[in-house]
Amino acid sequence: MPEKFLTENRAAPDCSYQPRIRLYVEAALAAGALVDLPAPQAHYLTNVMRLKAGDAVCLFNGRDGEWRAVIHEAKRKACVVAVDSLLRAQRAEPDLWLLFAPLKKARTDYLAEKATELGASLLWPVYTRRTVAERVNLDRLRANAIEAAEQSERLTLPDVREPAKLMEALQSWPTDRRLILCDESGTAKPIAEALTATKPTDRFALLIGPEGGFAADELDALRKLPFVSPVGLGPRVLRADTAALAGLACLQALVGDWQQSRD
Amino acid sequence: MPEKFLTENRAAPDCSYQPRIRLYVEAALAAGALVDLPAPQAHYLTNVMRLKAGDAVCLFNGRDGEWRAVIHEAKRKACVVAVDSLLRAQRAEPDLWLLFAPLKKARTDYLAEKATELGASLLWPVYTRRTVAERVNLDRLRANAIEAAEQSERLTLPDVREPAKLMEALQSWPTDRRLILCDESGTAKPIAEALTATKPTDRFALLIGPEGGFAADELDALRKLPFVSPVGLGPRVLRADTAALAGLACLQALVGDWQQSRD
Repeated sequence: MPEKFLTENRAAPDCSYQPRIRLYVEAALAAGALVDLPAPQAHYLTNVMRLKAGDAVCLFNGRDGEWRAVIHEAKRKACVVAVDSLLRAQRAEPDLWLLFAPLKKARTDYLAEKATELGASLLWPVYTRRTVAERVNLDRLRANAIEAAEQSERLTLPDVREPAKLMEALQSWPTDRRLILCDESGTAKPIAEALTATKPTDRFALLIGPEGGFAADELDALRKLPFVSPVGLGPRVLRADTAALAGLACLQALVGDWQQSRD
Repeated sequence: MPEKFLTENRAAPDCSYQPRIRLYVEAALAAGALVDLPAPQAHYLTNVMRLKAGDAVCLFNGRDGEWRAVIHEAKRKACVVAVDSLLRAQRAEPDLWLLFAPLKKARTDYLAEKATELGASLLWPVYTRRTVAERVNLDRLRANAIEAAEQSERLTLPDVREPAKLMEALQSWPTDRRLILCDESGTAKPIAEALTATKPTDRFALLIGPEGGFAADELDALRKLPFVSPVGLGPRVLRADTAALAGLACLQALVGDWQQSRD
């Protein structure tokens, strides 16, 4: 980065104001790097947020931590930022998978947003017998996850995995990952009780059925798998997206990273 | 109800199929009562769901339990149903309040839906210092709550209270109701730890701030109130609607009615 640029912009706003503008980028991040932002981000910074050369933003890429960067050149469809200083070192984030039967578009958008905020590390659409939505738009799923990661101050994005049939997805299941099955039948242990009985070394995944629920034989087959723990989410009927969010919240509160506070 | 009608329709579909059609009505429910459904419900049953005279639906009104009712007369804008038999007696549902700073329209809709599914008994919009949304459409809030109550098989609706300024709402606070404050400052106890320390006799309310968070002095004032328990919801920044749902899920799982299973 040119010395002149650094000197002139010493008084540029830093990232301590609220809300901070945080962007996910794919480029490597290190002091002095110049990052060419793609057109949609350039548009957002210059036209929507009205930022100018010298203004600061925060960048993360899932690998190199969070960095302060200063706008070097701002045009309507092109924006170059100069990476300045490290704000937060990269660190491990929760290892918590979400397997869900695809829902209608707006509810899948919402689910991706909320699951990302709640710290899911993997979003995996799985087809069950009664899954109605046929196609999953993975680009849209990723875009919603990126926006939520930016806003929630995550340092990573959740992985988005190619859709699979549920039973095929479970054939190569990692034996050390407990699959928490949201079981609406009324026979499963309440979630708090079931999670209290897990081992501290367990890794977790949450499985949510489609709006119509699992088929009876599907549920039977799931319950027989050694890595599956069926759990109940109370006496009311929850929509699939509600069950996903409620399950993730309980997992984080009881066996996840909600024992930590915010930085 | 005419005897002929009952005899002819003995083979009418009952309410055991999925999804059941459940409607909230204001009328009193008792065997033999004829209920005149308002035009939107008549339209839904006859035009959207294509039900005909003799088909069965379920009705509840928040007071008299859930009843099977049979369509007596179906026209496009008018539908009369004959109340038949009691399916579930009225019973107490959770006593769990949600106080929230109003959000933008779509997020308030979503919040009303999810909070109802998660068993909130009261939805109370409160204005905080940084609340941006100025007006709350209470009819819309009620309509979303009704639809969610119908789908989630609740026997009650949540009450919807007139918006109030937060500090005025707290001036006449019932001393036996613990107010769980979602506190993003990073200094509060994690929610699971805080809830474990409450008394079994406690009643609860959850308070969620606006998108911009509580003002610092507002948070200080809240923390000093004897009925307030600040709790943390982990290291990430949650949107206000996410915090509301996550907080309600944890409350139900740890100190609420998620110890019960579905009927």
